[in-house]
Amino acid sequence: MDPEAERRYVLSLSCPDTTGIVARIAGFLADAGGWIVEAGYHSDPDTGWFFTRQVVRAGSLPFDADELRSRFAALAAELGGQATWRVTDTGVPKRAVLLVSKEPHCLHDLLGRVTAGELPVQLAAVIGNHDTLGDIVRAHGVPFHHVAFPKAGSGATAGDKAKAFDELRGLVDQHDPDAIVLARFMQILPPQLCTEWAGRAINIHHSFLPSFVGARPYHQAYARGVKLIGATCHYVTADLDAGPIIEQDVIRVDHGDTAVDMVRRGRDAERLVLSRGLRWHLEDRVLVHGNKTVVFH
Amino acid sequence: MDPEAERRYVLSLSCPDTTGIVARIAGFLADAGGWIVEAGYHSDPDTGWFFTRQVVRAGSLPFDADELRSRFAALAAELGGQATWRVTDTGVPKRAVLLVSKEPHCLHDLLGRVTAGELPVQLAAVIGNHDTLGDIVRAHGVPFHHVAFPKAGSGATAGDKAKAFDELRGLVDQHDPDAIVLARFMQILPPQLCTEWAGRAINIHHSFLPSFVGARPYHQAYARGVKLIGATCHYVTADLDAGPIIEQDVIRVDHGDTAVDMVRRGRDAERLVLSRGLRWHLEDRVLVHGNKTVVFH
Amino acid sequence: MDPEAERRYVLSLSCPDTTGIVARIAGFLADAGGWIVEAGYHSDPDTGWFFTRQVVRAGSLPFDADELRSRFAALAAELGGQATWRVTDTGVPKRAVLLVSKEPHCLHDLLGRVTAGELPVQLAAVIGNHDTLGDIVRAHGVPFHHVAFPKAGSGATAGDKAKAFDELRGLVDQHDPDAIVLARFMQILPPQLCTEWAGRAINIHHSFLPSFVGARPYHQAYARGVKLIGATCHYVTADLDAGPIIEQDVIRVDHGDTAVDMVRRGRDAERLVLSRGLRWHLEDRVLVHGNKTVVFH
Amino acid sequence: MDPEAERRYVLSLSCPDTTGIVARIAGFLADAGGWIVEAGYHSDPDTGWFFTRQVVRAGSLPFDADELRSRFAALAAELGGQATWRVTDTGVPKRAVLLVSKEPHCLHDLLGRVTAGELPVQLAAVIGNHDTLGDIVRAHGVPFHHVAFPKAGSGATAGDKAKAFDELRGLVDQHDPDAIVLARFMQILPPQLCTEWAGRAINIHHSFLPSFVGARPYHQAYARGVKLIGATCHYVTADLDAGPIIEQDVIRVDHGDTAVDMVRRGRDAERLVLSRGLRWHLEDRVLVHGNKTVVFH
Repeated sequence: MDPEAERRYVLSLSCPDTTGIVARIAGFLADAGGWIVEAGYHSDPDTGWFFTRQVVRAGSLPFDADELRSRFAALAAELGGQATWRVTDTGVPKRAVLLVSKEPHCLHDLLGRVTAGELPVQLAAVIGNHDTLGDIVRAHGVPFHHVAFPKAGSGATAGDKAKAFDELRGLVDQHDPDAIVLARFMQILPPQLCTEWAGRAINIHHSFLPSFVGARPYHQAYARGVKLIGATCHYVTADLDAGPIIEQDVIRVDHGDTAVDMVRRGRDAERLVLSRGLRWHLEDRVLVHGNKTVVFH
Repeated sequence: MDPEAERRYVLSLSCPDTTGIVARIAGFLADAGGWIVEAGYHSDPDTGWFFTRQVVRAGSLPFDADELRSRFAALAAELGGQATWRVTDTGVPKRAVLLVSKEPHCLHDLLGRVTAGELPVQLAAVIGNHDTLGDIVRAHGVPFHHVAFPKAGSGATAGDKAKAFDELRGLVDQHDPDAIVLARFMQILPPQLCTEWAGRAINIHHSFLPSFVGARPYHQAYARGVKLIGATCHYVTADLDAGPIIEQDVIRVDHGDTAVDMVRRGRDAERLVLSRGLRWHLEDRVLVHGNKTVVFH
Repeated sequence: MDPEAERRYVLSLSCPDTTGIVARIAGFLADAGGWIVEAGYHSDPDTGWFFTRQVVRAGSLPFDADELRSRFAALAAELGGQATWRVTDTGVPKRAVLLVSKEPHCLHDLLGRVTAGELPVQLAAVIGNHDTLGDIVRAHGVPFHHVAFPKAGSGATAGDKAKAFDELRGLVDQHDPDAIVLARFMQILPPQLCTEWAGRAINIHHSFLPSFVGARPYHQAYARGVKLIGATCHYVTADLDAGPIIEQDVIRVDHGDTAVDMVRRGRDAERLVLSRGLRWHLEDRVLVHGNKTVVFH
Repeated sequence: MDPEAERRYVLSLSCPDTTGIVARIAGFLADAGGWIVEAGYHSDPDTGWFFTRQVVRAGSLPFDADELRSRFAALAAELGGQATWRVTDTGVPKRAVLLVSKEPHCLHDLLGRVTAGELPVQLAAVIGNHDTLGDIVRAHGVPFHHVAFPKAGSGATAGDKAKAFDELRGLVDQHDPDAIVLARFMQILPPQLCTEWAGRAINIHHSFLPSFVGARPYHQAYARGVKLIGATCHYVTADLDAGPIIEQDVIRVDHGDTAVDMVRRGRDAERLVLSRGLRWHLEDRVLVHGNKTVVFH
């Protein structure tokens, strides 16, 4: 198959709603001969905002992605100063950096999916605050870095932790990644990193948020006696486990499941929810507005 | 709230795909000042067809539904002779006729939903080939008609059955219903009625089609030892249980469930699947192409 | 079929765990010729408690339910003073009283299920703090009582409310019901009634608890931007929405769902979760220990 | 923790049902001081068979697994000649051999789960009829063998294929595995191997059986327009895709999913269903009777 035939430009836009936006965007694309293969629209009645995502065959346009961006910028400007938009090119692979600790299941799952060609991303690096998972990462041909974090109760100062985060930031930022995935990374990002990586740092929390924020959510779930456990993929913000939710799912448990069983069984939800959330992020399906997401499936 | 503010026109269209269709429709609506509150698009790469559904605030247009139809007809004509389309007005209630036998659960569920205002439809009549369910229908203020069908093995001729179907058809057609719902109706519609009611007759089959076509599907499922049972809502065609599928869902069973348990437990899937499929049909979310459906959620 | 062949005795027991309990109970039943058709066991490693539920064909025992109770009491006494147990007879129908306000969907669903023979219970009465739902209740042949509660902000005293609850209590208690179902009843039971009806009062809360306790949970869910909404069936305790959970389930939502859509769509979860929880309660499948439940499916 | 404290014996038994079986087994275990931590029972009303699975703390018994087997054999003999039973020891790791072709996702998933300690099994070997997946297998420290199968249309004779299967059988049988997992292995086992490996060969089929038996099930599903796709884990028999079902699950699709999308998305169901089915098999939770399974969760 001609790879250009499959190459696509993905336009996404948010702006205050008004009549005629769809017509303008569609008209703009039609005038250029653009062949739309996917289109999603959402008008939010509460906030009065409009959201769209359009996928166009690259080969149907007589110009390249940069020219598309420049022309689309002009159109977006006419929609008012609050509009935010982006144009990405599926011919330019996205890059991700994974942050891990010792829990292997989400890492294994993502490595398997990337190796199998299921996720449209290049793994630029994996960084661990332990080196437990280094071997399997390198076996997949992906660079692994170990950044030592001070242990809780080790007498380390806040400065030691800040230094570790500085090292981490350097290792991440050199790749300018499209996604920074906290794949069961057991350190809380400092507020400054949350800000710098806003909209790119993605976490998997092992509960059905907003239930069971913070540590040991399966043990909290066990104590409450819930009949379903869950996992939540969300953008990282300075508010712990309170960022915009991308995806959630649940798994049925019963009285025979101990907290340890829940930890094991919940991994299936974590794997699926993180891989789905990450895929949608990489495909530019997720638009953030306030503390909520619009996800165009 | 001003009811007119909530009144909407729903446009749906299928036609061979080409560039610029979205622009034309969106431009047409924008030129008239139309405020689009929902828009769905689908390009089918295999068939080369395009499908759309648009929802416009009635009050945003300077003309009524008939004028909208007449103007949209002109636009559709330019999209080629194969285009099919419709414009409906949420201010004009849809009408449904329900066909039932003795099984009460789907009937009870639909009566409850309509009474509670959950389904946007008027129940014009319920027709049963038994009179078992007449009382509860009348208690909801809906007319009930009993049409006697010859019993299997009663020595009745094919003509007796044809006569019963003629009576049924008369009772249905006098209401010119938007939906004819076979809510566990245990008679097979003759081919001619399938044709006349094409796209309006909706059946609930108590299996996850295409598994277990025909009679006693739960008993078939039990014999095969499946771990999930299901239900399928589909348009009726002359091919038994083979029409375009609108919606399906499943319920987990295990070795402890007898065929009788499956019959009971499967009702939850039947109720949900039928009520969802019917809702989507009534909201003009379902476009049929060949033997498949596009469902704009 | 001989109805006695289907009549069963259901034994359930909780006690501190030790070796040999299963052998004792099984031996007791075997010695009497009891034919066990269902048996569930659970050992809780955290609390050190043991739970069982056994279903025996009534016709396989040479004595009646009272004699079974008297013999089983002797056995239970040997298991220590903390054991709690009961023996019920499926030949003696359970009775339920439903409490409702204006929301009709759970009521309709339960009426439909009882009428269709899906739930093993007699509806002794429905009591509403509004009379909105009286007609449909009476159409099903079930007595309806209206108990007027003082309106919020009406200047009514706490005494007025207490009087209304006294009237409610009288109407409920005259039936000595096995289940008191709060089918979207919008009044908070006073602590004394929670105590008196402990283990019999069942509520449906329209969220996936422990998320979104209290009022307007769908609006809370909408504000948080969750991707699944849920419902929880639980025993009522004096702690609002914090009693032992019997059953939960969820429904997927997306950015296109307003809070009003969630209210409507969530009803499907409420109906299913309440009907499942109530069925399990009526079949003596639910054993409460502390603030958690063991549910033998 | 003392590992012996966690070591368990798992007893499973099927036999014609009669009164007193539970009492005999429970009495036998109680007399020996056995501490039962899990117990499942099932009486099948149709076939008149009884099934049980009991899990006993190894340390609670005054003898070892072999002595337990010998004593249990005597008890089973008293239950009649048709009884089948087994006693396994969680202190003796189970062994599995995986058979693969080119599709990597189930292999990656199982390797990840075994490495993470999620599945109670040793991977003795992976055998591929292609060598595509050898590197990742070896990176996990598991032996990989490539057995060349004649290509379709290559002029190879039936004898060439039989020779390949002989080689495969030798490589498998040398490990005397408890599970032979066809992890998307694209060769049909000859009837003799199905017989020899009966109850140990486990396949994952990429449809919701009995729908879409045989080749390209996702393309069959796409053509039929189903709204859910599925996967089925079953024991291999000489009847293609018709063996006893262990586990099934489904994933929602819509009109926007092409057959290629279904292939990709269905992998999530395949991974989960295979890993669950395999776990239950390894934990001796699955008892086969006729063409159906009893699965004690």
